[in-house]
Amino acid sequence: MEKEPTIWFYEDTGGIKLGLPVKDILFHKRSAYQDIYVMEIKGHGRALVLDDCIQLTEKDEFIYHELIVHPALFTHPHPQEVLVIGGGDGGSVREILKHKSVRHIDLVEIDAEVIEVAKTFFPTVSVGLKDSRVNIHIEDGIKYVKTTDKKYDIAIVDSTDPIGPAKALYEIEFHQDLGQRLNEDGIMIIQSECPYYNAQFIKDLCIRLRTIYPIVKIYVYAMPTYPGGMWSFIYASFKYEPTDVEEGKIKARWQTMTTRYYNPKVHKGVFYMLPQFMLEE
Amino acid sequence: MEKEPTIWFYEDTGGIKLGLPVKDILFHKRSAYQDIYVMEIKGHGRALVLDDCIQLTEKDEFIYHELIVHPALFTHPHPQEVLVIGGGDGGSVREILKHKSVRHIDLVEIDAEVIEVAKTFFPTVSVGLKDSRVNIHIEDGIKYVKTTDKKYDIAIVDSTDPIGPAKALYEIEFHQDLGQRLNEDGIMIIQSECPYYNAQFIKDLCIRLRTIYPIVKIYVYAMPTYPGGMWSFIYASFKYEPTDVEEGKIKARWQTMTTRYYNPKVHKGVFYMLPQFMLEE
Repeated sequence: MEKEPTIWFYEDTGGIKLGLPVKDILFHKRSAYQDIYVMEIKGHGRALVLDDCIQLTEKDEFIYHELIVHPALFTHPHPQEVLVIGGGDGGSVREILKHKSVRHIDLVEIDAEVIEVAKTFFPTVSVGLKDSRVNIHIEDGIKYVKTTDKKYDIAIVDSTDPIGPAKALYEIEFHQDLGQRLNEDGIMIIQSECPYYNAQFIKDLCIRLRTIYPIVKIYVYAMPTYPGGMWSFIYASFKYEPTDVEEGKIKARWQTMTTRYYNPKVHKGVFYMLPQFMLEE
Repeated sequence: MEKEPTIWFYEDTGGIKLGLPVKDILFHKRSAYQDIYVMEIKGHGRALVLDDCIQLTEKDEFIYHELIVHPALFTHPHPQEVLVIGGGDGGSVREILKHKSVRHIDLVEIDAEVIEVAKTFFPTVSVGLKDSRVNIHIEDGIKYVKTTDKKYDIAIVDSTDPIGPAKALYEIEFHQDLGQRLNEDGIMIIQSECPYYNAQFIKDLCIRLRTIYPIVKIYVYAMPTYPGGMWSFIYASFKYEPTDVEEGKIKARWQTMTTRYYNPKVHKGVFYMLPQFMLEE
C-alpha cells in the first residue's frame, strides 16, 4: 500500500487555508521575480507554486485556462491577433490555439524561469509555446504595452495575484495603455481573485475599467485548488456583450474543438451565476 | 492588536484540506448520532461542525441554504406543502418560509441535539423553526417517509455527507418511498457533494433517481468553506423542467423577498454552469 503523504502544502488566503498533500518536491528556485516550486501532489499530478500561491495543478488547470480564454474568444466573431500578459506556463496559449481564426499570439512573460519550468515539468500545459503562431517576449508587460505599436483583437492578463510583480497589472495606467493596443471591437480579460474574500478589490477594479471600456462584466467559476471556492475573471470590451452571442453560433465553432469545462451553455452560465450580493455592492 | 489565531481546524475531503482559524470552541458534545462542535472562526462568525465536517459558517451559509431551496420552490408554480429531511439547523426552513404560498413545513431531523445547538448558537439560521407553519419531527427520515401518508409539493434532503447516519438517504429504497410522498408535480432536491472529487458518486445517484423521476438535473454552486470549490445539488421532478420557467415569472415572486445569492439569472446560471466533463461522463 502506498504510504500516505505526511507533508502538506498550505496556501493561506483571506483567513482560510487550502492544503494539498505533497508526495515530492521536484524543483525549487528563487528567480529574479519570485519563488518557484514544482511539487508532485497526491491525486492532482504536478503543481506549480509561485510565491506560496498555487498557480496550477495538472488535475484542474483546464478549468482556469478554458475559462480565461473561451468566453472572450467565442464572443469575438473572428479573433486573429491575441496578446497574453503573463501566462508563462502556456495554458492560455494552448486554449487560444484551439481557435482556427487565430493567426498570431504575443506572449509577454516577465520571468523566463517560469517558461523554462513549464517546458520541463508541464508538457501538457506548455504544449502550445512551440507553435509557429506564438511569439514569446521575455519582458515586463507594463513596458510592452507602452512601447509596442501592434493592435490586438483580444488581450488576456493571465497574471499571479495582485501583489508583488503583478500589482501594476491591476492599476489604471497599465489598463489605459492596454486599451489603446486593442482594436475598436477588442476584448480584454483579467483574472480577478475570489469574490467572497476580495469583493472590494473586484469592485475597485471594475470602477477603473469602466473609465476605459463601456462593457465591463464579472464572470465566475469554481476552482478546487484555489482557496475560497468561487473565483472570477473580468471581461471588458468596447463593443461586444458576451451574453448576446447566439448559442448556435458558439456551438458551430465549438464543435470543431475539444474542451473539458467550457461549452455553449457554460458561456452563459458563468455570467449568470453572479451572486445577488455582488450585484448590489 | 487582536492576537492571530494559532489553532486551525482542518477538514480533509478527497485528498485536499480546508483550514479555518479557530478563535474559540463554544460547544462540544457527542450526541447519539454524531460529534457536534460549535466554533468561533476568525472572519467567518460561528461554525457548526458535525463529525469533523463543516456544515455551515455564519458568513456563507446563505449560499448553501438559498440554493438548496429556491431553484425548486421557484420552479414549482405554487408550493404549499414542503418536507425537509435533515436540516435541523433551520437554514432551509428559513428560506422556504420566504415563499408566501407555503402553508406547512414538516422538518424531520434525527438528532434533537442539532436543533438545540442551532437554537442556542445560531439564532439567525434557526429563526424559522419557531414559525407556526413548521412542524418538527425528531425522527429518522427513512422511517418517516415509510410511515407517513402525507403528500408534498417539495421534498428537500438537506443531509450531512453520505457516510454515517446520512448514508441511507442516498439509497434507492429511501428514494422510492420519498417519491411516493410527492404529488404528481412534486420536486425533490438532495445535496450531492463536490463534482470534482465525487463524480462517480453523483453519476450513480443520478442513475438511481432516473428510475423514479423523468427529470433529473445536477446544479452547481461554489462554497468558500466546503473543500473542493464546486458543490452540487440534484434536482428531480415528475413534471417541471427548472430552466423552462420564465424569468419574468420568477422575478415577480422573487421581488417580494430578500436573497443574497439567488436571483432570477442565478436560477438559470446554476444549471448552465455544468462543466462539459460532467455531461460526458
